[in-house]
Amino acid sequence: MNSLQKKILSEGKVLPGNILKVDGFLNHQIDIALLKDMGKDFYELFKDKNITKILTIEASGIAIACYTAEYFNVPVVFAKKGQHKNVGKDVFTAEVFSFTKGTSYEVAVSQLYLKPDDRVLIIDDFLANGQAVLGLQKIIEDAGATLCGAGIAITKAFQSGEQLLIDAGIDVKSLAAIESMENGTVVFRD
Amino acid sequence: MNSLQKKILSEGKVLPGNILKVDGFLNHQIDIALLKDMGKDFYELFKDKNITKILTIEASGIAIACYTAEYFNVPVVFAKKGQHKNVGKDVFTAEVFSFTKGTSYEVAVSQLYLKPDDRVLIIDDFLANGQAVLGLQKIIEDAGATLCGAGIAITKAFQSGEQLLIDAGIDVKSLAAIESMENGTVVFRD
Repeated sequence: MNSLQKKILSEGKVLPGNILKVDGFLNHQIDIALLKDMGKDFYELFKDKNITKILTIEASGIAIACYTAEYFNVPVVFAKKGQHKNVGKDVFTAEVFSFTKGTSYEVAVSQLYLKPDDRVLIIDDFLANGQAVLGLQKIIEDAGATLCGAGIAITKAFQSGEQLLIDAGIDVKSLAAIESMENGTVVFRD
Repeated sequence: MNSLQKKILSEGKVLPGNILKVDGFLNHQIDIALLKDMGKDFYELFKDKNITKILTIEASGIAIACYTAEYFNVPVVFAKKGQHKNVGKDVFTAEVFSFTKGTSYEVAVSQLYLKPDDRVLIIDDFLANGQAVLGLQKIIEDAGATLCGAGIAITKAFQSGEQLLIDAGIDVKSLAAIESMENGTVVFRD
């Protein structure tokens, strides 16, 4: 069991509606020692892929992406949500549909920071419906760069997103793939 | 000259309207080695204050806050902007007026993660008008915690925010205090 899985069992909270709250260590308050372990775990999963850049989406992906990038010794780029006036005019964009909110939002990455020779690892905190990663995949393709994989902290394996990404040809790996959260008990896959 | 100042001179871009673009290493693409240097520099500035928590605002403050927190060996809490339904019901909130956008937005911090015995260091990327830090100051006061200082990456010292924070009793320290950006040339204070 890795550090994230241990933390989820000891401090995560399961709320009605299959909601897993990790606000105490990942999404609102951040435990830096945990992030370092997660970065190292992601590095072990993708270290053979010659990654040149880590791509994530603001806001809660940023910290995880940074500590992962540190092990790869590459920069992070975070896609900006919504209004991206200050990203500049030359941007790659994608629409991301949020099932939670029932609406779409746009994500944007400046063309300055994704190039055709980039080998990109996507890092994100949660995978449920997979729409955010598919949006980032489109942006990477538009840049002519290579998507080498998606490292997800917590995957709700009982939802459709993971299979959707696999079907889209993405090498998805999760630190904590949750099979079920019945009666408030988190069960990991494997 | 510290690492951030060097980076601003070598890679920052001054745009019309006193806009300093640091997208290449801080606010869109992130240079991890720079963040580590910045974290260490902030630690040197505030290490005698017995800090127990770093507080910032999503999104671009998060990475800097994490690498600062690492040196202090304390958690980061990032205030959430706008809709904070998923923060929970028991939150400290503040209104922050954005001079850039001409509107206010709300920032929220769960009451779980700021306690009366916390000694808080605010970390943020830019200081111009100071409204974001004043909002965080209100939240810290509402929590009954102690605000020990504000560490700012880049301060536009020719705008009013820095003095506003000093007048509010805040110990403000900046890694790069910019005195002027006339004709595209960045001049640091001191």
